Amino acid sequence: MKKTAVVIENVRPLLDCGRYAIKRLVGDPVHVTADIFKDGHDAVAAALKWRKAGAKKWRETPMNSGDDDVWSGSFAVTEIGDCEYTVEAWLDVYETWRDEFRRKHEGGQEDLRSEAKEGARILERGAKRAAGKKRAVLRDAAAELVKADNARAAALAARMDLSAIMAEYPDRSIGSEFRPYGRIMVERKAALFAAWYEFFPRSAGGRGDRGSTFRDCLGRLDDAKAMGFDVVYFPPIHPIGMTKRKGRNNALECRPGDPGVPYAIGNRHQNCPHGGGHRDVAPELGTLEDFEWLVGEAKKRGLEIALDFALNCSPDHPYVADHPEWFFHRPDGTIKYAENPPKKYEDVYPLDYHNPSWQELWNELRDVILWWAARGVRTFRVDNPHTKPVAFWEWLIAETRAKFPDLVFLSEAFTKPKMMRVLAKAGFSQSYTYFTWRNAKQELTDYLSEMSAPWSADYFRPNFFTNTPDILPFFLQQDGRAPFMIRAVLAATLSPLYGIYSGFELCENAALPGREEYLDSEKYQFKKRDWNAPGNIKGLIGRLNKARRENPALQHLTNLRFHTAENDNILFYAKATGDNVILVAVNLDPHHTHAAAVEWPLWEYGMGWDADYTVEDLLSGERWTWHGSKNYVALDPSVRVAHVFAVRR
Amino acid sequence: MKKTAVVIENVRPLLDCGRYAIKRLVGDPVHVTADIFKDGHDAVAAALKWRKAGAKKWRETPMNSGDDDVWSGSFAVTEIGDCEYTVEAWLDVYETWRDEFRRKHEGGQEDLRSEAKEGARILERGAKRAAGKKRAVLRDAAAELVKADNARAAALAARMDLSAIMAEYPDRSIGSEFRPYGRIMVERKAALFAAWYEFFPRSAGGRGDRGSTFRDCLGRLDDAKAMGFDVVYFPPIHPIGMTKRKGRNNALECRPGDPGVPYAIGNRHQNCPHGGGHRDVAPELGTLEDFEWLVGEAKKRGLEIALDFALNCSPDHPYVADHPEWFFHRPDGTIKYAENPPKKYEDVYPLDYHNPSWQELWNELRDVILWWAARGVRTFRVDNPHTKPVAFWEWLIAETRAKFPDLVFLSEAFTKPKMMRVLAKAGFSQSYTYFTWRNAKQELTDYLSEMSAPWSADYFRPNFFTNTPDILPFFLQQDGRAPFMIRAVLAATLSPLYGIYSGFELCENAALPGREEYLDSEKYQFKKRDWNAPGNIKGLIGRLNKARRENPALQHLTNLRFHTAENDNILFYAKATGDNVILVAVNLDPHHTHAAAVEWPLWEYGMGWDADYTVEDLLSGERWTWHGSKNYVALDPSVRVAHVFAVRR
Repeated sequence: MKKTAVVIENVRPLLDCGRYAIKRLVGDPVHVTADIFKDGHDAVAAALKWRKAGAKKWRETPMNSGDDDVWSGSFAVTEIGDCEYTVEAWLDVYETWRDEFRRKHEGGQEDLRSEAKEGARILERGAKRAAGKKRAVLRDAAAELVKADNARAAALAARMDLSAIMAEYPDRSIGSEFRPYGRIMVERKAALFAAWYEFFPRSAGGRGDRGSTFRDCLGRLDDAKAMGFDVVYFPPIHPIGMTKRKGRNNALECRPGDPGVPYAIGNRHQNCPHGGGHRDVAPELGTLEDFEWLVGEAKKRGLEIALDFALNCSPDHPYVADHPEWFFHRPDGTIKYAENPPKKYEDVYPLDYHNPSWQELWNELRDVILWWAARGVRTFRVDNPHTKPVAFWEWLIAETRAKFPDLVFLSEAFTKPKMMRVLAKAGFSQSYTYFTWRNAKQELTDYLSEMSAPWSADYFRPNFFTNTPDILPFFLQQDGRAPFMIRAVLAATLSPLYGIYSGFELCENAALPGREEYLDSEKYQFKKRDWNAPGNIKGLIGRLNKARRENPALQHLTNLRFHTAENDNILFYAKATGDNVILVAVNLDPHHTHAAAVEWPLWEYGMGWDADYTVEDLLSGERWTWHGSKNYVALDPSVRVAHVFAVRR
Repeated sequence: MKKTAVVIENVRPLLDCGRYAIKRLVGDPVHVTADIFKDGHDAVAAALKWRKAGAKKWRETPMNSGDDDVWSGSFAVTEIGDCEYTVEAWLDVYETWRDEFRRKHEGGQEDLRSEAKEGARILERGAKRAAGKKRAVLRDAAAELVKADNARAAALAARMDLSAIMAEYPDRSIGSEFRPYGRIMVERKAALFAAWYEFFPRSAGGRGDRGSTFRDCLGRLDDAKAMGFDVVYFPPIHPIGMTKRKGRNNALECRPGDPGVPYAIGNRHQNCPHGGGHRDVAPELGTLEDFEWLVGEAKKRGLEIALDFALNCSPDHPYVADHPEWFFHRPDGTIKYAENPPKKYEDVYPLDYHNPSWQELWNELRDVILWWAARGVRTFRVDNPHTKPVAFWEWLIAETRAKFPDLVFLSEAFTKPKMMRVLAKAGFSQSYTYFTWRNAKQELTDYLSEMSAPWSADYFRPNFFTNTPDILPFFLQQDGRAPFMIRAVLAATLSPLYGIYSGFELCENAALPGREEYLDSEKYQFKKRDWNAPGNIKGLIGRLNKARRENPALQHLTNLRFHTAENDNILFYAKATGDNVILVAVNLDPHHTHAAAVEWPLWEYGMGWDADYTVEDLLSGERWTWHGSKNYVALDPSVRVAHVFAVRR
């Protein structure tokens, strides 16, 4: 009971009552507030405490009180891994005494001998807790206080050095600690700031007639590097099943030579050295050694290779033969293929995550991650996580991060908002989003306002993909380069995480009629491309990625603010970090020139309301002189779709 | 892990993550919502479960799904005491099968024999869980399904009686239960709906020369009953200390015959039969038997007597001699009196709730409540609870309610908002509020909007006192009866709980100059009054209390809605419960006539937008015919300050 002598409430942040961890990057501050108060008139002190998960000892920092009993404090997380934090508050015996003594003295009370003795006793107790020189200081002050007259005692009570030492060695016997503890998942910078480039290794060579191999991928790596990307992501590279293999454009019948869908994983008949399942690479791409070589080449270039973690088993997957109990069964004992009636997906067997041997299955899937992590892969894009139990992901991410704390998982869940959010809570570092379908000014403003709000950004990190092998949005199916340029600028500047699927830079827009899907998708066939085809926007992408690298403002999420552009086709926003201020104006209409007065409250960015300043377009290198808050932009999409201005003061 | 197979989030209400209980009255509905969803396409079912605290078995009711994965359900609490509730959700195996079967059948799939067998197996398992006749129904259906053709199987899958039985005996093996549990403090009606009348028994006879006794109080009881009050509340009735006793108007020197402040409790020198402390009554008021007789007389009249629980000890309190260790000590060993430097309160010794023998002290104080509860007192007004540990109240209220679940505690904490709120969370049924100082239209609207909002009303129940022995608000110090009438109408109709301190009905307004305190306060002396003095407003109070009793709309808090009055001096609001609609228009200016068009959206109260209807003033008995939403009121404070209309359709 004494442990709740001080009220501590409303500790923020605290995700779902501490059920889940908030996310931070190494070096990030964690700002915590709490309502703290005590009965009566006693002084209260409070500390913000944190420690690595599993550690015994807390580190701590004092909290400061503000209006309405709200206290706050901050600490920085300095190491990748899991942390926990809480708030402790206690009756501050010494400050309570000081305040009472001062009020009595100033009120003219004559006999303060008893009060002085009380103070001396408190100081003596403090001395017992203190060490070395500080102990002596407190002892001396106590000895002096016992025999001091009022004026001398008041002078001692006013000594700030005594207060400081007493605060350093507090008596917390009458206090409280807040439960539940807050949790933090601390990650490396690439969990929040990275540009992703997705390509199929088998199409890397761009030959089209037959597949490329890992050894053919260096060109793509160099190109990705030249464009300024950080992460290169491969769809599944594992052996592909033959049974019910799909043909071109998702045909049910597969012709000889059709390479199959990389998501129909597993082919134990290929005599792969690691069983032909999720631990293996497709022989047509090369060997595991080839892959490890490629990972090394990427590393040399400052690139990271991300793998797809797609939990689909083809009927030829080794699990099917070795662990039929992991699958769903029909009454006749055969294994059930995937269905979404009336649709059938006979090339894939879903796993039963609740089968009686579920723990073995879960362990195996965890070990697949550990297997690739041991081979240098630290980033996984997870395919359709929303069709597997959330509890499974929470467990798997915790288990694998315990061994490799720098693992990053991207959730590919295009589904209902709450499922997308709970996957992020469960531990996914990043998430695909609805950005792909947000094109109008109001919907972009609404969606980004939600995504960048601290309550959301505390755990949900959007990765803005402009396109994917599954999605060629209608917006990009319009004529010309402008739609691609618009989406590139938006993705790269609105979000610190974004990505493109290869072909985007070539403005590829051939779709299945009436569908948001690629015609002749390389999910089902080899793809032939001229990676330097005329009309490409590699230059723009390179400049965007350079701007991102050089401007800290573009490396954060919660610093986004929308400002006024007096035209519904022009989106105008600012991102600022310290002195680095970026202003972006985008023409959302790929077909017509739009102009607008744009207005931003520069005084809220540390500038004078009528300042003259230079804005430098990081895309074109041009510079303009702007004056005050209201200025003018005109964007002709045949020339440029956007300004990405750095404000030069 | 399998226990979190379904995601359950955002269970509402849930006060501070289940740390505290929400409050309900016996018979109240508890409406619970939660976000519930599962991976994949499976059907989900959910139940809202509740039980008495300490019970093993849950009761439950199905939850229904709405938009955006929000599910909801309701149950009624039927017994005073503590309850807990949670949500359980699970994969609904049978409905998942039904849905898939239907989609395959409608999609034209030809061979459904395997699917039918699967359904039969699910029904057979259901039969094992089911009882009696229902078991047989499931068995028969399973047997039929095994051999059914597609059409026959589809007909079986469509049978709602089978769905109903399967829902009654669900397989919950793949599911989740939400933690932490929600908690509910279930109380009797008077915890939310009561009119309080406070008087000092020693002034009850109105003689003034010498004190009255319990035996003199019958007149006051009858008068309180005639005015329609429910609760009669006495300031402390215990022996009053002699040491440092205060004189009239809080004088430091006390003259012979001065009765002392009832809040300086305890006089062991008086040879009281129960020690002269908190278990005793002041001999000048009579005996414990006299008090018990008075409690009985009150009961006969349908009145309840509430006592003050004031944890102040005079230096003559028996605790001082028997348990000096329960108090604070000065370095010389003497006990410390109360201080708020430079002010001293030498007639009172504060208790040290964290002294090394704190558990003994806490037990003793708990036993004081139990002592009076055993003597028929079930309502306690607690004096200054914010100067004692919140943890102490949480413990004391839980301990005493475990023996007397019908106990009601009123928190007299005029302090910072968060402290007032946490005391309510800790278990106080009712709380004094800032209402006493809210007079203008905007501040009344703001404050009442907060008080009546469900998030607040879930645990914080305002008791609107117009005045107390400590507070004669400036508003009431203005000339005339109108200020008193205005405050009476507001208190009685805005809040289901309200109270007056005696003298209010006589419009007593003599204050200490420049202070919000009574002149010649009966806290310090006997008071002589003519309880039927001319100019009293007992008639108005009686009509208000009658209106409250007869109109359910006035017995609730969250049904308050403010509507438009086109005059800043007129407050216009509605309360509705079922068909009972009350409209109140109050002239907040006691000195001038104000008139206004008032407008209410009658269509939101189940009436036609252009209805003709009668409004009956429950204060005057007059009736008017109103038309549509916009009508007209004029309030001359010399005639009336308010209309309290019942809408008659």
